[in-house]
Amino acid sequence: MAAKNQCTFGLRITGCVATLSAALALATARQSVHFSDVNVSIQVGYSDLMCYMCLLVVNVIVCVYSFAINLLPKKSLLWRSVVVIDAMLMVLLASSNSAALSAICLERNGNFHAGWRGICGLAPQYCDHIIGAIAASYLGFVIYMILLLLAINNLLNPLLVQ
Amino acid sequence: MAAKNQCTFGLRITGCVATLSAALALATARQSVHFSDVNVSIQVGYSDLMCYMCLLVVNVIVCVYSFAINLLPKKSLLWRSVVVIDAMLMVLLASSNSAALSAICLERNGNFHAGWRGICGLAPQYCDHIIGAIAASYLGFVIYMILLLLAINNLLNPLLVQ
Repeated sequence: MAAKNQCTFGLRITGCVATLSAALALATARQSVHFSDVNVSIQVGYSDLMCYMCLLVVNVIVCVYSFAINLLPKKSLLWRSVVVIDAMLMVLLASSNSAALSAICLERNGNFHAGWRGICGLAPQYCDHIIGAIAASYLGFVIYMILLLLAINNLLNPLLVQ
Repeated sequence: MAAKNQCTFGLRITGCVATLSAALALATARQSVHFSDVNVSIQVGYSDLMCYMCLLVVNVIVCVYSFAINLLPKKSLLWRSVVVIDAMLMVLLASSNSAALSAICLERNGNFHAGWRGICGLAPQYCDHIIGAIAASYLGFVIYMILLLLAINNLLNPLLVQ
């Protein structure tokens, strides 16, 4: 039981660090792009697209929650409710990660059929920050998925081990 | 117990219908666009973007699963494993829905900072199909979320009802 508690404690702290890294990488995703042919400079940043702002907010929430939940006493009955909150946060992370991944894929590759050119060649630093943030955020998602599966496993024995 | 079984049966059949509708709407999302100024016609369709193809595949899988799982005998121990599969499918639906939503938002609004124009004005029928598919698929997601929360509620009493 103590080993199991230490394991979930470790997972939550790793989740906290991963989502904090994701939030920091996103918040610093900003770069100026100069188009020399028309002599125009524009700035691209995470705040251009709603899905990156969502990803930032979700990562900040998960980071704070992952840290704070460890302060709950081990014998509290509230740990039962924590399973539901974990499941919700996992879904929020999955959704916001996928939305951001979809957007960065479009920003990287463009969409030939819509006549859109990729912008990662022009703003590589911005794209690297976004991709790093999504990778870290997916780590957070995997951790919450493991926490949910561990909870279901403890309760239900879904693998039907005798 | 019988009422609870009927409730989950009803939810699964609704999920089956919702994901089937989403798959059909997506599979028929295709439209020719004519640019009169340069006299060029292109065809936009769901297969242009990977995220729409993912959404189609996930919806077909969930549709078949939602129907087939009702054939499992009520007293089978395998219902314990079904909770885990439900959770996985819910995450897949959440992810593919969000990715598609993010892409259709970009296709609808464009991205000013990347110099992308929205294409929904040119291909309204295509966009309507995609948006309808995403809405139906979100209904499927909500149903699987409810199924998971019902399962957790039965096992854990997370609201601490005396």
